[in-house]
Amino acid sequence: MSGLTLSPEQIGIGMRISIHPHSDDYERIILEALETTSDQLDLTGLEITTGEVSTYVGVKTGAAAQQLADYATTLIASASRASNRQHLTSHLLFSRGCPGEATCELLPGEIPVEQTVTLEKTGLEAAAAWSLYPLADDGSAHMDPIYAAIGQAKASGITVTSEHYATILRGDLADVLTVVLNAWTKVGEDVPHVVSHLAVSLDSPSAQRQGDAA
Amino acid sequence: MSGLTLSPEQIGIGMRISIHPHSDDYERIILEALETTSDQLDLTGLEITTGEVSTYVGVKTGAAAQQLADYATTLIASASRASNRQHLTSHLLFSRGCPGEATCELLPGEIPVEQTVTLEKTGLEAAAAWSLYPLADDGSAHMDPIYAAIGQAKASGITVTSEHYATILRGDLADVLTVVLNAWTKVGEDVPHVVSHLAVSLDSPSAQRQGDAA
Repeated sequence: MSGLTLSPEQIGIGMRISIHPHSDDYERIILEALETTSDQLDLTGLEITTGEVSTYVGVKTGAAAQQLADYATTLIASASRASNRQHLTSHLLFSRGCPGEATCELLPGEIPVEQTVTLEKTGLEAAAAWSLYPLADDGSAHMDPIYAAIGQAKASGITVTSEHYATILRGDLADVLTVVLNAWTKVGEDVPHVVSHLAVSLDSPSAQRQGDAA
Repeated sequence: MSGLTLSPEQIGIGMRISIHPHSDDYERIILEALETTSDQLDLTGLEITTGEVSTYVGVKTGAAAQQLADYATTLIASASRASNRQHLTSHLLFSRGCPGEATCELLPGEIPVEQTVTLEKTGLEAAAAWSLYPLADDGSAHMDPIYAAIGQAKASGITVTSEHYATILRGDLADVLTVVLNAWTKVGEDVPHVVSHLAVSLDSPSAQRQGDAA
C-alpha cells in the first residue's frame, strides 16, 4: 500500500484542544467562543467531538494542518475576546499517524506532504510551552528533528527560549501556532507518528508584572 | 559509565505543572495552594521554578516519582479546596531522561529502578486525559509499552476509556496520579527517555450534567 493517496482521516490527523478562561463566567465564554468559531469557519472537513476534558477535532478531508490551525486560532482568540481579555490558557495536542489504538502502518517516504500553514495576525500576544515528540520506531536519533524544529522556530522571528522539557515561544498567537503546526507537519513528512503538545497563555498577570509577554 | 549510580538530577527526572482555577479569584487560589503545598511537604529534594506558563519541579535527590506524586496531588487538591470546589483543571508533563537540550546518554538496563508510588485518597473525583510517550530510539515498537500501561491502568480499578490521542482515566485524584506515575516509571526502566502528559479536570459542570464523573 502506498500512503501517498491516503486522506487525512486514514493517516489519522487531528488534535485535542481545551480552553480555560480564568473567570467565574467560563461557561458562557467557552460556549460563545465555540459558536463564533463555527460561524466564522467552514467546518465540513472536520469531525468535532467535545468530551469532559477536551475537544477532539479530527480532519477527514482537505488541508489538514491549515484547518486545525484556523480552528485553534479562532477558538482561542474568540474566547479571549469573549472574556474581555481576562487571563486564558489553552492546551493543544496535535497528532499524526497511529490513530487511537490502531496499529501504525505508515511508511517513511510514503506520507503525503502537507501544505505550509499561514495565519493572519490576531493582535493577541501569547506565551506558550511547546513539546514535539517524533515517535520514530526506526532507530534514528529522535532528538535531531526536535533541534531542527527549534532552529526553524528561532528563524521565524518569534521569541524562543529553552526551559526544562519544553521550549517557550512568545509572539502573536497566530505566529506561535504557525511555527508549531509547520514544525509538526515537517517532522511528519519523515516520521510516521508525530505528536506535539502546546500550553498557551494569554494575558497572564505574571507576564504583565514581568513585562515579558511581548 | 553505569547509570545505576545516577541521581534523579543526573538522569533528568521532573515535571512541569500548571493549575487553572476557572474563577475570577484564580490568583489567590493558586498562591494559597502553593503555600499549603510548601507547608505540608518537605521540598528539600526538589528544585522548583515558576515560569509564566507552568512551574518546573525537578528532583535532585530521593524517591523521584513519589516526591512528584506528593507535590502534584497536594497542589491540585489544595487549589480545589481553596476555590471551594469550583471547576479546576491542571496540566502535567512528566519527563525522565534527556534533561533540557542535553544529549541522551542513558542505556537500557542501566537505569535505576524506581520505588512504586503510593498516595492516600483525596476524596476528589477526577477525569483525566493521559498520554504516554516512550521516546525509544532503539527501533522497538513504541506502542507496546503504551498498551501494557493501559492494561495496568485497567487492572488498578479506576475507570479507563479510550479516546483519540489520549486515554481517559476517572477516579480519585490520588488513584489517577498513582496509575500515571507508576506507568511512567515502569516504562522508564527499559526506555531511556519517557514523557507523559496528563490533563486533569475536577468538578466540571459537563461531568455533573452527564453524571459520569465518578
